[in-house]
Amino acid sequence: MQGLVDLNADAGESFGRWKLGDDERVIPLVTSVNIACGWHAGDPATMRAALRIARDAGVAAGAHPGFPDLAGFGRRALTMSPREAADACLYQFGALRALADEMGVAITHVKPHGALYGLTVRDPAVAEAVGTAVAAAAPGVPVVLLAGPTADRVAELGVPVVREAFADLDYDDAGHIIIEPDPVAKDPQACAQQALSVLRGKVHSVSGTAVPVRADSICLHGDRPNAVEVARAVRDAFAAEGVELAAMRAVLADRDSGAASAAGTAETAPA
Amino acid sequence: MQGLVDLNADAGESFGRWKLGDDERVIPLVTSVNIACGWHAGDPATMRAALRIARDAGVAAGAHPGFPDLAGFGRRALTMSPREAADACLYQFGALRALADEMGVAITHVKPHGALYGLTVRDPAVAEAVGTAVAAAAPGVPVVLLAGPTADRVAELGVPVVREAFADLDYDDAGHIIIEPDPVAKDPQACAQQALSVLRGKVHSVSGTAVPVRADSICLHGDRPNAVEVARAVRDAFAAEGVELAAMRAVLADRDSGAASAAGTAETAPA
Amino acid sequence: MQGLVDLNADAGESFGRWKLGDDERVIPLVTSVNIACGWHAGDPATMRAALRIARDAGVAAGAHPGFPDLAGFGRRALTMSPREAADACLYQFGALRALADEMGVAITHVKPHGALYGLTVRDPAVAEAVGTAVAAAAPGVPVVLLAGPTADRVAELGVPVVREAFADLDYDDAGHIIIEPDPVAKDPQACAQQALSVLRGKVHSVSGTAVPVRADSICLHGDRPNAVEVARAVRDAFAAEGVELAAMRAVLADRDSGAASAAGTAETAPA
Amino acid sequence: MQGLVDLNADAGESFGRWKLGDDERVIPLVTSVNIACGWHAGDPATMRAALRIARDAGVAAGAHPGFPDLAGFGRRALTMSPREAADACLYQFGALRALADEMGVAITHVKPHGALYGLTVRDPAVAEAVGTAVAAAAPGVPVVLLAGPTADRVAELGVPVVREAFADLDYDDAGHIIIEPDPVAKDPQACAQQALSVLRGKVHSVSGTAVPVRADSICLHGDRPNAVEVARAVRDAFAAEGVELAAMRAVLADRDSGAASAAGTAETAPA
Repeated sequence: MQGLVDLNADAGESFGRWKLGDDERVIPLVTSVNIACGWHAGDPATMRAALRIARDAGVAAGAHPGFPDLAGFGRRALTMSPREAADACLYQFGALRALADEMGVAITHVKPHGALYGLTVRDPAVAEAVGTAVAAAAPGVPVVLLAGPTADRVAELGVPVVREAFADLDYDDAGHIIIEPDPVAKDPQACAQQALSVLRGKVHSVSGTAVPVRADSICLHGDRPNAVEVARAVRDAFAAEGVELAAMRAVLADRDSGAASAAGTAETAPA
Repeated sequence: MQGLVDLNADAGESFGRWKLGDDERVIPLVTSVNIACGWHAGDPATMRAALRIARDAGVAAGAHPGFPDLAGFGRRALTMSPREAADACLYQFGALRALADEMGVAITHVKPHGALYGLTVRDPAVAEAVGTAVAAAAPGVPVVLLAGPTADRVAELGVPVVREAFADLDYDDAGHIIIEPDPVAKDPQACAQQALSVLRGKVHSVSGTAVPVRADSICLHGDRPNAVEVARAVRDAFAAEGVELAAMRAVLADRDSGAASAAGTAETAPA
Repeated sequence: MQGLVDLNADAGESFGRWKLGDDERVIPLVTSVNIACGWHAGDPATMRAALRIARDAGVAAGAHPGFPDLAGFGRRALTMSPREAADACLYQFGALRALADEMGVAITHVKPHGALYGLTVRDPAVAEAVGTAVAAAAPGVPVVLLAGPTADRVAELGVPVVREAFADLDYDDAGHIIIEPDPVAKDPQACAQQALSVLRGKVHSVSGTAVPVRADSICLHGDRPNAVEVARAVRDAFAAEGVELAAMRAVLADRDSGAASAAGTAETAPA
Repeated sequence: MQGLVDLNADAGESFGRWKLGDDERVIPLVTSVNIACGWHAGDPATMRAALRIARDAGVAAGAHPGFPDLAGFGRRALTMSPREAADACLYQFGALRALADEMGVAITHVKPHGALYGLTVRDPAVAEAVGTAVAAAAPGVPVVLLAGPTADRVAELGVPVVREAFADLDYDDAGHIIIEPDPVAKDPQACAQQALSVLRGKVHSVSGTAVPVRADSICLHGDRPNAVEVARAVRDAFAAEGVELAAMRAVLADRDSGAASAAGTAETAPA
C-alpha cells in the first residue's frame, strides 16, 4: 500500500454575509486546502481568513478557481474554450496569490472547482491549457487533476500535476466521479475505506467494478455537513495503516524520487 | 519647467461583447497604461489583449482596479473600509499579474479607477491602506495617487507613490479633480496647455484659482472619444518644450536622484 | 395606544448554495414579509420558496429590492440618482411579481433594503421617485418608508405609503435608525418594549431622547440569530396589550378611515 | 406564399457604459422587438430607452431573457433544469414588464436569448417549462420558439407559441440554426432571399438540403454590424412580393382564424 499521500479539502467557500463550511475545524485536518477565489464563492475577506487559518495550521494553501457563477456555486456546466478556462484559472490564482503575498503565504497549487474541474475531466484540451498556463505563470506550481489518463497526458507535457482521487464521492465505471449538487452527510467509515482502497490502487464504481487508480492526493468536501467526521475517520484509518500525510509538494517529490530510483534500478538491471 | 514626466492612460476597458476605447491607437501614445481588471470593466481576454499591445509597444503595464460595479463602470461611489479597498486592489492587481506572468510582462504600478480613486482622494486612510498593501505584496510596485497632500502622506510611510495630475479633467479650488460621468470630447490644445501648466507647477481650477501641483505622471482618459487627438496634442506640446517622456519607474528614479543630489547639495552648501 | 399594526420581516435572503434566515419559522410570525429580489440576496428558487411559505401562512408578500451588491448584501452605500433607485425598485419588484403571478400570489408592497432604504431616508428625492414609480407601475401598491417627515412628504403626493418603525434597531436623536453591519442577537423583551413604545407614539434614541413616531408597521430583522424569539416576544407583548395585527393593506385602510372620521368629526364639531 | 408575417429583432443590448446596436434605427424597421433584461445585457436605463423607442415607433415590445452571463453575453451554454430556465424567463420578463407598466407599454411576448434559446431548441422539457410558466404568469403572452417539432409540441399544451425562423443565420440539416459567437456583416440580399424562402415553406441548410419550415415571425440580429441594411433588404423583398408585416399577436390571430376556417371547411366537407 502507498505509504505517503496528501489530504486536501476545499475552504473559503463563504461569500459576504453568507457562511458555509467550518474552515476553523476542517483546515487543520488536511495537508492542503483549496481556497475559493471569488467567481463561484469567496470574497477577499473570506479568502484572507482562509489563508490565515491555513498559515496558522501549517497547511499548504492552493487556489480553487471556478466558473463565474455565484448563483450556481460553480457547479453548473458552462461552455468555455481551453483558453478561456486557462484564463479563468490564472485570474483567480493570481488574485489569491496577491492577497497571500501580502501575508507572506505561498500558494502551492491550483485545483479547478466543480463544473470547471468537470470540464478538465471531460475535455483533455482544457486540462492541458490550464496546466500549461499555470506552469508558465508560476513555474513549479502544480495543477490538481482527477487521477487518470488525462492527468497522465498533461504530466507528459512537463507540467507539474497532482493526481487526485476522492474518498467521499462515488465513481462510475469509466473512473469518473459523480458530482452531487449539494453534498449530504456520508458514512465516515465508508469514506475511510474508500481512501484506503485508493492507496491500494483501485476504487470500486457504483456498479461494483474495480477501477485502477494512482493518486497523490485524496480529496474531502469541506462543505459536506459532516466534513469534520469524515476527515477524522480518514486520518484515523491512515494512522492505523501507517500511512503518512504530507502536503502535495512533498508527495510529488517522493513520487519523483521513487520514479527516479526505479528508473535507476531499471537502468542498472542489465548488469 | 519639469523636464521628465510619464504619460498614462486607461485601457482594457472593453467587456466581453462590448468594445470601448481604441487600445491599439492609444496605448502606443503613452508611456504607462492602466489596465482594467474585471470588476468595473475588462475580462481576462480583454486584459490579455491590452497586455499584448502594451508589451509590443514597449509601454509599461499597470493594474487599474475598480469597484465591483460593471453596471456603473466603477464610477458610482461605494462604501468601503480601508481594508476592503486594499483587498479590492490586491485582488485585481494579482489577477492581472498572473495573466501578465504567463506572457512574460511585468506589472509596474497600481492605479485605482473611478470612484475607488475618488475614495483614495477623499479618505487618506484608504490611500494609505492601498499603498501599504500593494507595497507589501509587491515590493517596489508604486501606487498612483492624485498629486497632493494625501499622496505626500502615503509616500512618507515609505510606500512608493506616483503623484498624478490630469491634462483632460477640470480641477476645483481644493485641487481635486471633477469626474465626468461619461467622458466627452475635449479641446486637445486646451489639454496640452493644462499638461504644460502642470509641468510648470500649477493648474488652474474652474474658478480660475492657481493650485500648486507637482506630478510624476499626467493622465489622459482612454475612453474619451477623441483620446488619440488629445494624446497627440500633449505629446507635440511636450516635444516643442523639450519635455521628455518616460515610464513611471524612470521618473521616480529621476525624482529621487534629484532629491538626493539636492539634499547632497544642501548638505554641502554651508561650506 | 394604537390598537392595530402590521408586523413585517425580511425573508428570502438565501442565495444559491448559501442559506440565511429561518423563513419557515419567521414568516408565520409576522403579517407582512419582504422578499429579497436577487440583487443583494435571493435567487429565483429562493424567491419562489419564500412566496410559497408566505402563501401557505396567509402572510402578505412584498418585494425587498436592494443595491446590486451581493458581496456587501446591499448594506454598502452606493451612489444612485432618484431615477436609478426607482428603476432598481421597479426591476426587482417586477421580477418577484412575475414569479408570484405564476403561483397566484399577490405582491402587496415594496420595501427598499439596507443601504437603498438608507438612501430613501437621507435623500427625499429618492423616496419620492421610488414611491411615485411603484404607484405608477402598480396602482395601490404602497412603498414602505421610515416613519418621519420624508414618508409624510411622499404620502402628500398621493402615493400610498406605509410608515415603518423598528423594534430591534437603535435610533439616533434625528429619528434615524442605526444600521448594524451583521445583525446580532438582541434582548427579545427590550425589542417588545420598543415596539409597544412605538404604538404609544415615541421611541427613545440611544442618547435617551424621546422621538415622536407614528407607524403603520413594525419591522423585525429576519436574519437576526434570535429572530424567532424576538418575534414571539413582540407578539406576546401585543397580545397582552390587546394590540391587533393585520397586514399593511388593512392597517392603511383603518388609518385612512380613522383619518376620514376624525376629519369628519372635526368638520362637524363646530356645530 | 405566406402573406403575413412578423419581423423581430433584438434590442436594448447595451450595458451601462457600453453601447451595442443601433436601436434608434433598427427598432422602427421591425414589427416586434426583443429587449434584453439585465442578465446577459441591458440595465434598467437601457431597457427603459428601448421601451421608449418601441413605443414611439409603434413596435411591439417583448422580453429577451438570457443566461446570467454578462461576460459571455448569454451565448455560452449553461446547465439549467427546466424549472430554473422557466424561473430565469419569468424573473426577467417581470422586471421588464414593471418598467413598461410605469410607461404604459405592454409586453407582448417572451423570447429566450442566445444559449438559453439554444437550450429550448435542444431540450423540449425546457421549452415546455418556459412556455407554460409564462402563460401561467401572463395569460395570452406567447413564447417565441424556433419553428419545428418542439414549438409544435409546446403549442399542443395550449400555450401560445410564436414559431420563428431566421433570415440571417445558417441552418443545419436538422433544421437547427447555427449560432455565431459574434455576428458579422452578412449579404443583405441573401438574407432577404432566405426570408422569402421561409415564407414559401422551406429553408436550405448549409449542405443544400431543403428543410420544411412554417414561421409566424422572422428574426434579424440587431447587433449585426449591417443590421439596418439587412432589415431594409428584407422589408423591400417583402414589399415586392406583397407580403404584409404585422406584430406577433396579429399574425397568431390570422393563423388561428385560418386554422379555424380550414377546420370548418374540413368539418363541412363530408356534406
